[in-house]
Amino acid sequence: MNAKTVRIGLIGAGRMGSFHAENLACRVPGAVLAAVADPLPGAAQKLAERLGVAKAYSDLHALLQDPDIDAVAIAAPARTHAEWVMAAARAGKHVFCEKPMAVTLEEADSAIAAAEQAGVVLQVGFNRRFDSGFAAAIAAVKAGENGVTQLSRSVTRDPRLHDPAPIPQWTIFLETLIHDFDTLLHFNHGARPVEVYALADALVRPDFKDKGLLDTSVVTIRFDNGAMAIAEASFQAVYGYDVRGEVFGSKGMLQAGHINANHCVRYGAGGIAIETSRLDSDLLREAYVAEMSEFVSAVRTGETPRATGEDARNALEIALACIDSVKQNQPIKLGAH
Amino acid sequence: MNAKTVRIGLIGAGRMGSFHAENLACRVPGAVLAAVADPLPGAAQKLAERLGVAKAYSDLHALLQDPDIDAVAIAAPARTHAEWVMAAARAGKHVFCEKPMAVTLEEADSAIAAAEQAGVVLQVGFNRRFDSGFAAAIAAVKAGENGVTQLSRSVTRDPRLHDPAPIPQWTIFLETLIHDFDTLLHFNHGARPVEVYALADALVRPDFKDKGLLDTSVVTIRFDNGAMAIAEASFQAVYGYDVRGEVFGSKGMLQAGHINANHCVRYGAGGIAIETSRLDSDLLREAYVAEMSEFVSAVRTGETPRATGEDARNALEIALACIDSVKQNQPIKLGAH
Amino acid sequence: MNAKTVRIGLIGAGRMGSFHAENLACRVPGAVLAAVADPLPGAAQKLAERLGVAKAYSDLHALLQDPDIDAVAIAAPARTHAEWVMAAARAGKHVFCEKPMAVTLEEADSAIAAAEQAGVVLQVGFNRRFDSGFAAAIAAVKAGENGVTQLSRSVTRDPRLHDPAPIPQWTIFLETLIHDFDTLLHFNHGARPVEVYALADALVRPDFKDKGLLDTSVVTIRFDNGAMAIAEASFQAVYGYDVRGEVFGSKGMLQAGHINANHCVRYGAGGIAIETSRLDSDLLREAYVAEMSEFVSAVRTGETPRATGEDARNALEIALACIDSVKQNQPIKLGAH
Amino acid sequence: MNAKTVRIGLIGAGRMGSFHAENLACRVPGAVLAAVADPLPGAAQKLAERLGVAKAYSDLHALLQDPDIDAVAIAAPARTHAEWVMAAARAGKHVFCEKPMAVTLEEADSAIAAAEQAGVVLQVGFNRRFDSGFAAAIAAVKAGENGVTQLSRSVTRDPRLHDPAPIPQWTIFLETLIHDFDTLLHFNHGARPVEVYALADALVRPDFKDKGLLDTSVVTIRFDNGAMAIAEASFQAVYGYDVRGEVFGSKGMLQAGHINANHCVRYGAGGIAIETSRLDSDLLREAYVAEMSEFVSAVRTGETPRATGEDARNALEIALACIDSVKQNQPIKLGAH
Repeated sequence: MNAKTVRIGLIGAGRMGSFHAENLACRVPGAVLAAVADPLPGAAQKLAERLGVAKAYSDLHALLQDPDIDAVAIAAPARTHAEWVMAAARAGKHVFCEKPMAVTLEEADSAIAAAEQAGVVLQVGFNRRFDSGFAAAIAAVKAGENGVTQLSRSVTRDPRLHDPAPIPQWTIFLETLIHDFDTLLHFNHGARPVEVYALADALVRPDFKDKGLLDTSVVTIRFDNGAMAIAEASFQAVYGYDVRGEVFGSKGMLQAGHINANHCVRYGAGGIAIETSRLDSDLLREAYVAEMSEFVSAVRTGETPRATGEDARNALEIALACIDSVKQNQPIKLGAH
Repeated sequence: MNAKTVRIGLIGAGRMGSFHAENLACRVPGAVLAAVADPLPGAAQKLAERLGVAKAYSDLHALLQDPDIDAVAIAAPARTHAEWVMAAARAGKHVFCEKPMAVTLEEADSAIAAAEQAGVVLQVGFNRRFDSGFAAAIAAVKAGENGVTQLSRSVTRDPRLHDPAPIPQWTIFLETLIHDFDTLLHFNHGARPVEVYALADALVRPDFKDKGLLDTSVVTIRFDNGAMAIAEASFQAVYGYDVRGEVFGSKGMLQAGHINANHCVRYGAGGIAIETSRLDSDLLREAYVAEMSEFVSAVRTGETPRATGEDARNALEIALACIDSVKQNQPIKLGAH
Repeated sequence: MNAKTVRIGLIGAGRMGSFHAENLACRVPGAVLAAVADPLPGAAQKLAERLGVAKAYSDLHALLQDPDIDAVAIAAPARTHAEWVMAAARAGKHVFCEKPMAVTLEEADSAIAAAEQAGVVLQVGFNRRFDSGFAAAIAAVKAGENGVTQLSRSVTRDPRLHDPAPIPQWTIFLETLIHDFDTLLHFNHGARPVEVYALADALVRPDFKDKGLLDTSVVTIRFDNGAMAIAEASFQAVYGYDVRGEVFGSKGMLQAGHINANHCVRYGAGGIAIETSRLDSDLLREAYVAEMSEFVSAVRTGETPRATGEDARNALEIALACIDSVKQNQPIKLGAH
Repeated sequence: MNAKTVRIGLIGAGRMGSFHAENLACRVPGAVLAAVADPLPGAAQKLAERLGVAKAYSDLHALLQDPDIDAVAIAAPARTHAEWVMAAARAGKHVFCEKPMAVTLEEADSAIAAAEQAGVVLQVGFNRRFDSGFAAAIAAVKAGENGVTQLSRSVTRDPRLHDPAPIPQWTIFLETLIHDFDTLLHFNHGARPVEVYALADALVRPDFKDKGLLDTSVVTIRFDNGAMAIAEASFQAVYGYDVRGEVFGSKGMLQAGHINANHCVRYGAGGIAIETSRLDSDLLREAYVAEMSEFVSAVRTGETPRATGEDARNALEIALACIDSVKQNQPIKLGAH
């Protein structure tokens, strides 16, 4: 494209960072992956070499000071996101931040304010909304084609719980279901969530329950117009990565999501068989590229991206209420934080 | 079949009774519809004539005393079911009773005891479990093929809320979601429900909310092994009658149900289009016949039918807890009744 | 139903006859299975006992003379069908005849004439047209909703080729593909077939090729308006009974048929799995009942049934052209017989 | 990627050329679109500017002499493809050529020989084989998972026949069905086609029939092991771009392809609705990128690409036999050219 390319610096060269790096290096029109930073010795260097990226930093702040960089993509550990958003904004860089953008409402507010003050784009990694199926469903809701939403559902099931040990407490709400809360808020466009009730337990790895693991959860959300929404998560679906949504409204129902690995159906002596997607990077490959393409576009045009800091805050508010709900085994009213 | 035919008397010639009558008269091998009873003047007579049934009663007790009748099918108003189960059992008739078998636990216990004392078969109209898709899912759960159930979901959406006026309060739990509770109990075979949380509102007809109408509901159920289940109901799905189930377990996921009216897919200038089933009697036609066939078989063989009085009681317990939960806006522990 | 019941005598107590017998005895409103006839000693008696049928004949002509019988259902060996149609018509009985109604055009014409002269209903067992999916597709074609048909396809694959030895030569055209030809003629409503080209071989059991077995075939049919149709058959699909149709027209495409055994989808470590129907009597269970119900209705009302003797003749004409085409390895013009 | 980038020059800046150009410029890892050439004044320049490509040529031979270019992608008019393949090979450039690579067998042989002599990669644009569904089906066939192929089918339906006037005669075989022939040859891996019979007509635009238009066709192919294959094409499917395949073998059936535009299903008062893909560039977007990625990889590693000049020749042989078959209205034996 003849528009100015956007030079992006990546913060965090872990699994998700590497995946974003490949997209930025090869698949996102208009983006140049100009630098990679990771505090782990050698990590940034290795990723940069593999992808032919010019610069690698082990000092993340050095990347932020690099005048050659227009924007940053933050894929650092979740609990540091808000801090990096603020630092990047202060350095005048546009910001793409993986979800969750923050883990407290105060942090979220500060991050939003920092971006606003600096006049930079702030986009959050709610990739699911860039999946063509979810995007079509949300567009139909917003256009009123499905009527007023009455019941909605969002499901996230990760394919495998490898090692529960390093998983911080409440991760299921703050990092997994945060996607579903964001989705449900958009499925209920025009309504405000008023009450949350959450169940959560360690059903995949009950042996880690006393260490605080919660690997399975069901959340119900009540909206101010009476609509009811359900979010479901599990850390282990043996059949693959499972992300689906359903919106039932006064004019119909929309279903988004799928799990087929490809468009090949096999009929054999045992019946019909279809392969499933095993990785989020397979299932949502196009969505990951689409969100970064929209980020590049937002940087170029100054238009507000589809997934904003406010969206991050709204989803976080529900996640935090879930934590209270589990602690108290009670429905929790929103707006009391 | 050369086994003795089972002579059945129908109690209740309304919509559901008429539907059962047609099946008993024409589609259930081994059944003879021997008599029809309804207190509404002329109703039994009219149905009997249409189907060529020999006897019509306006006195329901007269039918129970008819020595020509082996068994009764009860399709009277829901709140009278238990009473008729007891009367029929006392008269020595085998009993098929539409759901809900009872609306209080005391009634349920009495009905079960009456059937037991009389030594008659007592089967309850949980037709959904006779749908081949739901039956296959439940069989897979019981066989352990899906592992331990962790998350499950059951949905009922009726196609149209005609007139809210005559609908008794709490119908959504006692008559609609009672199907879903029964389904979820079987999806969680081997576990016991311990806590229930219900949301319910009048979203289809908010103008009837102050008259006590609840037309939309979401219920979460927690089981003693930590498993979580969700039941959803709406009295109006503009796209048709929608009955689906999903069981997520440690070894996979099972989905049951469908809504296609037939196996014809249309591709046109507007995209792909598929007709949907508009009536329960269409969607579950085979299941209605299958449940009656099983009843005939149970009467002949003395084997316990798949859907028992105990099943009715178990589902009712959850429905009653839902009523408490809505009243208190709190999760309700089971077993406290 | 209060209309007069139709008393039916069955000719042929083999696999298909027994299946029709069960439907007539238990599932077809308005039908009474009054008698069963089969020349094999004991066969009629055994089937009659199992189903509680009053009369059993080993002399088939005796059944035709039984004044207690209104109509016959012919499920004798295919090559004798036309003879029995004529004999039954002459005896004043309405006739339901399994496909193929005849194996020569002369026989077909005679059978049609006999029924016409006797003033009896003549219906042919093109059951597929009573499947709700196929029926919807054909209705859409006739209503013009799919535009002018340009390309169409009909597939029949039987689940298992047990023993090739007793299969008469050309069975694949005369008994199997005859369904597809009938379907394609209705998919091309308003057009006339003008040319046929057939390929056929023994691919399932090549060891029987020199005995004349043809177990796999592809047929193309050209219509007078230029439309092209394809019929495909195989005697062995390891995944079950597979019957599908597709109509592509100037306004869209219709697809009919399915193979799922039930509405349960299983997701496991190996991917998605769905059970398939293994028997025609499973896949088309409803269609078999529907065709007999329509026969009963035609007998009562005198209306022409959906699947007529003329339909049988039209499909046969194509089957016979296929035989010529295989013999000559040439396209064969129709109308030259 | 740190492997050497492959510098590609594009020949032909029309619709397909522009689409390849966008992919090469933005979506194909390791590729650099170094130059664009088109004889139409300004066309190359305009495309180059839009995509930020350094060089634009109106003299196509000048591009071939550019030492800065490693490989060319040929998207010129079909009838000139072979000539450009030879010229590029002689200039020492690796070649990706859109299908058909040639329109006579002599040309095809010369093109293959030229590439072989020059030691350059020659890949042909059979993009369908890079679709994940088709690729999985073909892989399963080659692995023997589907047994020996007995019946197979490949369908191509373009969404809209805009203007029949500029379409050269026999285009339906040489440019459209050539994809299906290639697919069917791979569905019948290990067998050789021996006979072809083709029907073709102008059913979409009968008013152009006397000008030689053929817009609808059905082709049957017989293989040396008795297997039968069907190819179907139409230039106008009002519901969108429709590309599907089916392989029936001794161990089962494989179906590839789909037409849904996204993973959103809509249920409304009119039933179920799903949007369809309207463009090949939508439906096969990933496949177009995958074929170019494989080309880049073949150039780098010297490995033979999946879609070779021999594949192009094999499919062409069938296309040419189809032309003879239509002219003679006879099945045509292969190998007689």
